[in-house]
Amino acid sequence: MNSLRRVNHPKFNEGEALSPWRESLNDIIFGAETKLGKAFDIVLIVSILLSVLAIMLDSVEAIRLEYGRLLWTVEWVFTILFTLEYGLRLICVRKPWLYAKSFYGMVDLLSIIPTYLTLLLPGAKYMLVIRILRVLRLFRILKLAEYVGEANILLKALSNSRHKILVFLYTVLTLVVVFGSTLYVVEGASSGFTSIPKSVYWAIVTLTTVGYGDIAPVTPLGQFIAAAIMIMGYGIIAVPTGIYSAELVRAYTGKEPNEACPTCGQTGHDFDASFCKYCGHSLQQNGAD
Amino acid sequence: MNSLRRVNHPKFNEGEALSPWRESLNDIIFGAETKLGKAFDIVLIVSILLSVLAIMLDSVEAIRLEYGRLLWTVEWVFTILFTLEYGLRLICVRKPWLYAKSFYGMVDLLSIIPTYLTLLLPGAKYMLVIRILRVLRLFRILKLAEYVGEANILLKALSNSRHKILVFLYTVLTLVVVFGSTLYVVEGASSGFTSIPKSVYWAIVTLTTVGYGDIAPVTPLGQFIAAAIMIMGYGIIAVPTGIYSAELVRAYTGKEPNEACPTCGQTGHDFDASFCKYCGHSLQQNGAD
Amino acid sequence: MNSLRRVNHPKFNEGEALSPWRESLNDIIFGAETKLGKAFDIVLIVSILLSVLAIMLDSVEAIRLEYGRLLWTVEWVFTILFTLEYGLRLICVRKPWLYAKSFYGMVDLLSIIPTYLTLLLPGAKYMLVIRILRVLRLFRILKLAEYVGEANILLKALSNSRHKILVFLYTVLTLVVVFGSTLYVVEGASSGFTSIPKSVYWAIVTLTTVGYGDIAPVTPLGQFIAAAIMIMGYGIIAVPTGIYSAELVRAYTGKEPNEACPTCGQTGHDFDASFCKYCGHSLQQNGAD
Amino acid sequence: MNSLRRVNHPKFNEGEALSPWRESLNDIIFGAETKLGKAFDIVLIVSILLSVLAIMLDSVEAIRLEYGRLLWTVEWVFTILFTLEYGLRLICVRKPWLYAKSFYGMVDLLSIIPTYLTLLLPGAKYMLVIRILRVLRLFRILKLAEYVGEANILLKALSNSRHKILVFLYTVLTLVVVFGSTLYVVEGASSGFTSIPKSVYWAIVTLTTVGYGDIAPVTPLGQFIAAAIMIMGYGIIAVPTGIYSAELVRAYTGKEPNEACPTCGQTGHDFDASFCKYCGHSLQQNGAD
Repeated sequence: MNSLRRVNHPKFNEGEALSPWRESLNDIIFGAETKLGKAFDIVLIVSILLSVLAIMLDSVEAIRLEYGRLLWTVEWVFTILFTLEYGLRLICVRKPWLYAKSFYGMVDLLSIIPTYLTLLLPGAKYMLVIRILRVLRLFRILKLAEYVGEANILLKALSNSRHKILVFLYTVLTLVVVFGSTLYVVEGASSGFTSIPKSVYWAIVTLTTVGYGDIAPVTPLGQFIAAAIMIMGYGIIAVPTGIYSAELVRAYTGKEPNEACPTCGQTGHDFDASFCKYCGHSLQQNGAD
Repeated sequence: MNSLRRVNHPKFNEGEALSPWRESLNDIIFGAETKLGKAFDIVLIVSILLSVLAIMLDSVEAIRLEYGRLLWTVEWVFTILFTLEYGLRLICVRKPWLYAKSFYGMVDLLSIIPTYLTLLLPGAKYMLVIRILRVLRLFRILKLAEYVGEANILLKALSNSRHKILVFLYTVLTLVVVFGSTLYVVEGASSGFTSIPKSVYWAIVTLTTVGYGDIAPVTPLGQFIAAAIMIMGYGIIAVPTGIYSAELVRAYTGKEPNEACPTCGQTGHDFDASFCKYCGHSLQQNGAD
Repeated sequence: MNSLRRVNHPKFNEGEALSPWRESLNDIIFGAETKLGKAFDIVLIVSILLSVLAIMLDSVEAIRLEYGRLLWTVEWVFTILFTLEYGLRLICVRKPWLYAKSFYGMVDLLSIIPTYLTLLLPGAKYMLVIRILRVLRLFRILKLAEYVGEANILLKALSNSRHKILVFLYTVLTLVVVFGSTLYVVEGASSGFTSIPKSVYWAIVTLTTVGYGDIAPVTPLGQFIAAAIMIMGYGIIAVPTGIYSAELVRAYTGKEPNEACPTCGQTGHDFDASFCKYCGHSLQQNGAD
Repeated sequence: MNSLRRVNHPKFNEGEALSPWRESLNDIIFGAETKLGKAFDIVLIVSILLSVLAIMLDSVEAIRLEYGRLLWTVEWVFTILFTLEYGLRLICVRKPWLYAKSFYGMVDLLSIIPTYLTLLLPGAKYMLVIRILRVLRLFRILKLAEYVGEANILLKALSNSRHKILVFLYTVLTLVVVFGSTLYVVEGASSGFTSIPKSVYWAIVTLTTVGYGDIAPVTPLGQFIAAAIMIMGYGIIAVPTGIYSAELVRAYTGKEPNEACPTCGQTGHDFDASFCKYCGHSLQQNGAD
């Protein structure tokens, strides 16, 4: 229960007790432990998905011409409902300002603003698809702690490899700038390489193996260099995959690189280590783990 | 022998003995241990492949014009044979209703229905390619237990990572919805981004690095965002690969890091270990697992 | 030296001593240990690469028109040289017939036949690119044993995972047949899906994320199904990669799955196991490893 | 501090002390430990990025027509600044000639030459994008040692797998040559396969799953062979990924499976272990490693 609470009651919802009705509202809106709380979450997610679907359909011309009026109504109904919900969240949360500034608070606000903006800026409404981010709440209803745990492993592995990934990204960006410029000089505007930025775009399309074919080299030299980029891109994909795989293997086989030796303070011990591999002292003196 | 039996005689074929002739028929049709059973399976698989080939060729106009009559005959001959076989299966199996509802039973039925449907609905016949699923029986003739074991490891690893894969899929879907809508607003109908669903389709084509090129951004801003999606897609592929690799590594090395030997206390034993690999004592004294 | 000999002197070159001049010829042509043997290999590989280059250039019309005569001469000179070499190999090898039937023997023969065939069949000459396979001999000159060792690990891991890869290939083939046929029915000939084989071809192009764009779905339903195939293909790539990675990790971390327990005969023990995990008996009684 | 010094003061900057002003200049230009040194690096990197941006924008015709004059000035200002900087580096470094021949020295020189070359060769200026390589210095300002350490692991894993990658590359090149030539014979010039080099280019585009679609097979046989290449390419990507993943896993878990603890005989110790993790005794008593 404690771990559930911890997840459902993030910083903006910690603190002293609220007045009874606000406390129950809080449990329904922010919690997923009670029956009503679960029901609220399900209704909310279905509403979000329906409203996103409405926005998508509204962008299809044939449908808009036929059902435009209906979709317009649906959009406003959902927007007003979500506005009310946002208001209630602000009222019943312990620290409204912290909530408003949190990731979820921002997404909740961004999910209603565009509709009001359309009164001034018609195109803004399509930005409402950002509502899809609200569905993240879905994971609260599914066996919560489990998913959060899984996501945490994935994120931790990602965070552990962030330096390596930065090094990798820098390498990729350098490659596409150098190769893109080379192709710009080699192929020239007649083959569609009309500027360096466009050639860099082409290099990205090629290195990532997307390969639209809207721009493609036609001279033998250009095709030779392009072939080199492709083989590079085909091989380079091994790098982030290898990094991430190795990081996850480490996470799975239970290496806890952060558990320091109580004697010398060094980390990186194997899960099955009884003695510090650096100083030879026992790791278990605190009876930990 | 026992393990083979277990595989070949699934739930719908367990139970008391049948009358002798049904028992032999059962051994031939459902089993692969006897000579006749093996021969039956081989004939069946060749028939299935031939019938699927016939359906494929029939869809090629030049061939249909020339050999349409012949292919029509072939199709009906195979359908009648498969119908007879389905009837025999129902007769000689121990629990016909369980078989009919099982995966194989459904596939067997779906492999004959479309031909009869063509009497009403001409297009239905192409759905006969579902017959290809029947070839799954092939694995019974090949060194069976081995393949089933291999497939089980693959499936278990898949099942172990299903939460992570769901989290990953949700992330991918959110990304394509958000990026697709953005490109719809940025590029507009003139570049082929005629609606949000179509733009989301484009985002999927791009993120998965398929890149048909039937729709492609033409404005600098659109190409910039597209480049970001590509690099994301190029990197994100590392996530499912990493998840699956790590899961398989765990399955292979069988580490259950928390199960210590009750005698010497050492961990790191394989999943299928009965005795401690360090001290040679039994791991099962608690009757665990 | 022994390990080098073993590699350079395969079955067809084992046996009693030859007459002195054939022995020296053998050392030069088949060996890479002596100075002359190494020089011969280098000259041979350069000749092969030059002849393949000549064939490639000959296929470029502009070059053929200009230098056709020269390239024709080059081709015949190399062919006659390679024919002489093939004859010498047959003369100085210990078991000519075994050599002729071996992989290298076949490649050596196939590398000269097409030129003679062109006297009858002009198009045959382009099959000469098969000569590139002869360059495999290159690995003999590079630090040989090392490369062979590396390649062996890769091949052994591949061979260990062959069952899993077969299961995977069957799954992929079933998917492309089923999805290809579905798209054939959904999209029809007007979008380029003119037959089931062509639609299956499209499904392969899509699932493997190649995505030429010569055939692409245009109806919303077709695009929806195509998107499903893409995401599947994007995720499925994790399977062979995971299989192969895990197999290599196992190979690297020194699991020797083939070392059987001397007591119960079971395999699959960890590298660091002292006792059989199945029967609990010592694995070291023969002082092995 | 020591490890930082080691990185910042490579071979060309080792040796006896310089005169005071050269020493301070050296600390500013080559070092990143002092405040001024850090500030210099940041100004330098911003200048590099701005100058690369200017070159890129200059290649866009619409921008060049409007701001050509300004961009020309910017380019010359940066070139003169970088020339001054290059001169200062030569003056204050301990071994100017070693620096000039080092990777950084070459990049620094290549970053200014093209502008002077444009006085003779107008197209040369686009080669200035090579300046982007100078941004590698960025990693000095970020938590240096960390990034260098990460990059070292990645590079060591790459270097450990270089033999395997060479074997892999050779296999890929052989495949594309053989398949490309086959398609040239099968499809012929009418489908765009106008020569073997072009067909090999197509095979690379296909095998790496880039798939532009500028050349694509149209005959059934050609499409069949192409499908085989695609599935091969889709599966083959598993090989470098597997190699690199396994290599990184080995680097991470540091297993040197053959080094047993001299006291208890157990193996599986990390590469950096000084003491046995099972019994706590020193692993170094033989002075090994």
